[in-house]
Amino acid sequence: MELYPLITFLTDYGPSGGYVAACEAVIASLAPAARVLHISHDMRAGDIRGGATVLARVAPLAPVAVHLAVVDPGVGTARRALAIHTQRGDFLVGPDNGLLLPAAAALGGPSTTWVLEHERVRAQAALPQEGFSSTFHGRDVFAPAAALLATGALPALLGETYSFDSLVGLLPALVEKAPGGRVRAEVVEIDRFGNVELAVGFSTLASMLEGDGLHGRQMLVQVEEEEDQLPWEAKVVSTFGELPSGSLGLYRDSWGQVALTLNGASAAELLGATAGTHVLLGNLEGASGQDSGPGPAPA
Amino acid sequence: MELYPLITFLTDYGPSGGYVAACEAVIASLAPAARVLHISHDMRAGDIRGGATVLARVAPLAPVAVHLAVVDPGVGTARRALAIHTQRGDFLVGPDNGLLLPAAAALGGPSTTWVLEHERVRAQAALPQEGFSSTFHGRDVFAPAAALLATGALPALLGETYSFDSLVGLLPALVEKAPGGRVRAEVVEIDRFGNVELAVGFSTLASMLEGDGLHGRQMLVQVEEEEDQLPWEAKVVSTFGELPSGSLGLYRDSWGQVALTLNGASAAELLGATAGTHVLLGNLEGASGQDSGPGPAPA
Amino acid sequence: MELYPLITFLTDYGPSGGYVAACEAVIASLAPAARVLHISHDMRAGDIRGGATVLARVAPLAPVAVHLAVVDPGVGTARRALAIHTQRGDFLVGPDNGLLLPAAAALGGPSTTWVLEHERVRAQAALPQEGFSSTFHGRDVFAPAAALLATGALPALLGETYSFDSLVGLLPALVEKAPGGRVRAEVVEIDRFGNVELAVGFSTLASMLEGDGLHGRQMLVQVEEEEDQLPWEAKVVSTFGELPSGSLGLYRDSWGQVALTLNGASAAELLGATAGTHVLLGNLEGASGQDSGPGPAPA
Repeated sequence: MELYPLITFLTDYGPSGGYVAACEAVIASLAPAARVLHISHDMRAGDIRGGATVLARVAPLAPVAVHLAVVDPGVGTARRALAIHTQRGDFLVGPDNGLLLPAAAALGGPSTTWVLEHERVRAQAALPQEGFSSTFHGRDVFAPAAALLATGALPALLGETYSFDSLVGLLPALVEKAPGGRVRAEVVEIDRFGNVELAVGFSTLASMLEGDGLHGRQMLVQVEEEEDQLPWEAKVVSTFGELPSGSLGLYRDSWGQVALTLNGASAAELLGATAGTHVLLGNLEGASGQDSGPGPAPA
Repeated sequence: MELYPLITFLTDYGPSGGYVAACEAVIASLAPAARVLHISHDMRAGDIRGGATVLARVAPLAPVAVHLAVVDPGVGTARRALAIHTQRGDFLVGPDNGLLLPAAAALGGPSTTWVLEHERVRAQAALPQEGFSSTFHGRDVFAPAAALLATGALPALLGETYSFDSLVGLLPALVEKAPGGRVRAEVVEIDRFGNVELAVGFSTLASMLEGDGLHGRQMLVQVEEEEDQLPWEAKVVSTFGELPSGSLGLYRDSWGQVALTLNGASAAELLGATAGTHVLLGNLEGASGQDSGPGPAPA
Repeated sequence: MELYPLITFLTDYGPSGGYVAACEAVIASLAPAARVLHISHDMRAGDIRGGATVLARVAPLAPVAVHLAVVDPGVGTARRALAIHTQRGDFLVGPDNGLLLPAAAALGGPSTTWVLEHERVRAQAALPQEGFSSTFHGRDVFAPAAALLATGALPALLGETYSFDSLVGLLPALVEKAPGGRVRAEVVEIDRFGNVELAVGFSTLASMLEGDGLHGRQMLVQVEEEEDQLPWEAKVVSTFGELPSGSLGLYRDSWGQVALTLNGASAAELLGATAGTHVLLGNLEGASGQDSGPGPAPA
């Protein structure tokens, strides 16, 4: 039995070409008793923040594990390779580009951080040094390191400790107060149902907008990039079922964030929102200035 | 070792966002020794009947297991959450919207049905009651319930028994006799090779059309929505290899259903068929009325 | 415990319809302790060479295993079903259409080959003979055979030995010398980042082009199908980081092959290359004839 029976795995490698499987095969060779839980390999190519968000969502739900995550546009450059031990007891393994930081926080914060040295990892894994690629560190460094840690290898054998505070940070998604008593928040995810998740927590929004609680209110919703359009009106609801068919709603999504939904269709399409879009949220009663009135309800 | 070492898992969550992994992480926490067999997470959003069809295909091929299925457009409404014990010994866990019924039949029929109570499930799983969402019952109710059942938890701890006959049914896909001695059947699936599966069993079709057996016959095939077009001619074959390149065939597919295929190309594209389309099937010799003759063979 | 604890699995079945899961369910029934490592189910429908390439990449990275691979446009015809034992100790199971051959070579070469007989496989697996389909041998023959071999069943119980040299071969992807001291190579894969992998090994290319080593050179790159266009100039690099943003590079990819990349965008889109396209590679200094000069650097 491995010390860590579970390795979670997230990449932007996609389903084709065998890249994910190459890493899993390396894990199966080095840590045959560890189970691999695939978080997602469908992140947009190079989408570090998206990967960080999903990893931080899922990792705390799993038992204590080794979490292997590779969204790595800087592969082959001097960017560091990391192993982070968390207060909960997990290991996070991946590139030093911000990908691991939200998950580290969600797992109780970091305890110790190591910079993985390729040669040491490959020596411990009994892999040839010359087989090493410049473009596929998932297979050649990160998966071996994760597998070794799962079997109980001491991280000090794989690299030197490093200051967590010196790691490369992640620019947080935008959330701020906007003119007219409104809140501006960035779209962080469109889910497959077309729901639009914003970079603001539901309870944070409530405290940023004046008033007591959000539930039942009518809100004004506007995509900043289309500010010449009239804003949409959205009802704050607890469940999709409270919403008449074809009308826009604002709700606390399952990760505690503010999200917009359209009963029976895609809110993202209605609003013209994609990841990175800025959305303005305001109270209907507090509408002012260019918010000249609610938009037409979608048919 | 868990009482049920295998949990199968089907949803319409898609590959992104970590929704599937969130459920699997909950399972790994509550039933660490259970293995998860992913049936599909690629069902069209809200496609209850498609999910029910796939679940009923796969579940009987697996060993006795807990089958977790979540295609749940009514999440957050008053729709019931179910656990169904089957005659074969399996558990089916999912929403009360018809999704589980064909699989229950395919597993020998139901023995006992329970309505899962969220609070009881979460208490048994030692999950906080306040963490409960209105929109992600896969993670918050169904996966914990499935994991608990896999470990041998008594279903009576999770809810009250309920009458199977009172469950929400599923409107069956259309199959009926049509004028001119023909059979009208709904398209239930287009597979990735463009083959068109119909809602009629191969042996059922043989008995609905007069004559002795189908094999070797020429059939007339017409998409009802395009009835002004000449019907296509299709040969009834046992294997794709019997079919000349570019010609249409009708065969007993691997689930025992009637399906249409086009050697080397997509039958669905040729016919203009999608899920829900109605297809008319008739004997070539019995062609009558508006079936004025066979259509041109595709090039 | 199974004799082979790991079964790898590759198909062109895609994520929908439960086809992959049907096979995995059969495996779970017959070899419950074997773990399934999914290599890819996203091969293009019928793409035998693509499947063969990916299988040969991944299989050697895994521990000794049973490798189940089904890309099988000839299903239902007289094509043979195979089990190949390799020098490394692995079994390869799949159709006789060339799919398994590169992996057999990558695993040390074949030791013994058997032609699987459907009736014997199903008898050993205690499956009914009449349930056998003409169109889904993954579920009905290959998965049962792979599972039986994983449990230690003797291959002689499943079929007769056969001459490896009589198996159906795979037309190799094109790589050859071209006029003007150039090399012509077929595109074998576009990865999800738009990198273009060619059918020529990096060290092979170096020896086919005159000169000492490739690194640091400027190369001329031309898609043969668009030979009226000026060729592109590409720098030979070791890492993506050596390449200015928006410029084309040539590198040794992680499988040892020559590949083309465009820093920050899709090289495949720039070049108009898809799988099967022919690419001409030449030295910049050796440019001659219609290679009238380097193309404009992309903006």
